[in-house]
Amino acid sequence: MLYLIGLGLSYVEDITVRGLNVVKKCERVYLEAYTSILMAASKEDLEGFYGREVILADRELVESGSDEILENAQTVDVAFLVVGDPFGATTHTDLVIRARELGIPVKAIHNASVMNAVGACGLQLYNFGQTVSLVFFMDNWKPDSFYDRIKENRDIGLHTLVLLDIKVKEQSFENMARGRLIYEPPRYMNIETAALQLLEIENLRGESAYTSATPCVSVSRLGSPNQTFVAATLGELAEMESGEPLHSLVILGHRTHEMEIEYLLEFAADKEGYKTAVELEVEAAKAARGPLVAKEEEDSD
Amino acid sequence: MLYLIGLGLSYVEDITVRGLNVVKKCERVYLEAYTSILMAASKEDLEGFYGREVILADRELVESGSDEILENAQTVDVAFLVVGDPFGATTHTDLVIRARELGIPVKAIHNASVMNAVGACGLQLYNFGQTVSLVFFMDNWKPDSFYDRIKENRDIGLHTLVLLDIKVKEQSFENMARGRLIYEPPRYMNIETAALQLLEIENLRGESAYTSATPCVSVSRLGSPNQTFVAATLGELAEMESGEPLHSLVILGHRTHEMEIEYLLEFAADKEGYKTAVELEVEAAKAARGPLVAKEEEDSD
Repeated sequence: MLYLIGLGLSYVEDITVRGLNVVKKCERVYLEAYTSILMAASKEDLEGFYGREVILADRELVESGSDEILENAQTVDVAFLVVGDPFGATTHTDLVIRARELGIPVKAIHNASVMNAVGACGLQLYNFGQTVSLVFFMDNWKPDSFYDRIKENRDIGLHTLVLLDIKVKEQSFENMARGRLIYEPPRYMNIETAALQLLEIENLRGESAYTSATPCVSVSRLGSPNQTFVAATLGELAEMESGEPLHSLVILGHRTHEMEIEYLLEFAADKEGYKTAVELEVEAAKAARGPLVAKEEEDSD
Repeated sequence: MLYLIGLGLSYVEDITVRGLNVVKKCERVYLEAYTSILMAASKEDLEGFYGREVILADRELVESGSDEILENAQTVDVAFLVVGDPFGATTHTDLVIRARELGIPVKAIHNASVMNAVGACGLQLYNFGQTVSLVFFMDNWKPDSFYDRIKENRDIGLHTLVLLDIKVKEQSFENMARGRLIYEPPRYMNIETAALQLLEIENLRGESAYTSATPCVSVSRLGSPNQTFVAATLGELAEMESGEPLHSLVILGHRTHEMEIEYLLEFAADKEGYKTAVELEVEAAKAARGPLVAKEEEDSD
């Protein structure tokens, strides 16, 4: 059996009791270590807590060598630990499909991920549209497909969760070209960089998917001992110090409920300014849609 | 301190180790028992597992009497247990805002909820739009605001998670009118009813938000020992037997990735028919949007 086990967001103790019991009985335990990190725990912490060895699984091992992970899993139990929930990232679907092909039964033990825990900032999960990812820009490579997605969400008034890039065990172009297995230090995108990159693409595209006045919430170290939310405009976030990773960002939509704002204001340094930014969004959206659609809105739950 | 603790989806052991440690040290432990149920565990199971009393909190207690829950929480620790994640339902935002007003510190211990665990069906969470809720229709009350939301999602190619109604501790109109505190047996909407209600509204509105040929996935008893996914069209789901609760439903969007389909086919009784239903959706969407948008799609990640 292959067990996909979510570790949750931060602490070693964020694993579920059921997950822990399974880890303890498995023959081999892998930790997926390239799409996220557990904020308040190292591999050694996990090994201490589980009382057993944990094998780090980097991208190469999972994507090219998944047969090593799946070896004998028809007859022995293998655990594949994933920060957050096992079905947050595409790669693990790959692993399950490969396991199926080999006739290996698969079981998932779920846990919290940023996709649901982001509700802790006070925004209702019902009001979120599609989630997007933002990668580190390079001089000649600035992928911006997120822009159309954010615009789609905001056109219908929805919030957008923006997941920020994590680079773990990446090679420089030079080292890659020379075939040297030397890895760069890990990099985690902070809020400032995310906001600047978002504004850079808005400047290039100019379709007003959002502006520097758009109300946002920065989500830093979600679920960890020093979790922090900051409610501010995108322009303000571009100038803030977001501190230690991990970070995500929410861009608000105009279909914001009063209670969401009341909750968010707790996290705003400039409460009046933030409230005004939200009100301006709502006004602009109403003006753009005309009276008919505005009426529909009132009728709905 | 008020602790909001997610219980996950099904088993008593789905609580996190951290959550369990907090429950054990709290002075009072409440269980929110009206927006969801823990599928493989009763209140008594929980009490046995925690080794302590658990107080059932129905809607009245939380919404009208939250001061009872929050009593002394400035100085003692109180746990409020929620099936899934604490920030899945609006009501708990209320409770946190009330706690803040009373100067009570609040901490959340997250867990899996249907909003992220639904990824287990093989559809990518990135490809989901806003989540909607479907309530039991009555003869003279058929709220259909979900219809516009599903249409918004599907117009931009996104999947929709449809959460199905749960009626716990509801009074009949007659008993309510007579002031009798007699409650109806709990009701959980099944897939058949959901599909029929969805099709009823499509027939009324006629805007082709979806049809009986639209590919869907039924999600039954997610995270429980007998979790079941069925990939079928909405029309087919209207005729199936979905069995024990809880259920949810996903209506696919046309922006479906090949790997999502590969994964889903495992759950289709009629694999060829399902694949064709998906392909028809993609073709129809491409035809509707014209070549320009179709090109954009290819460029994106």
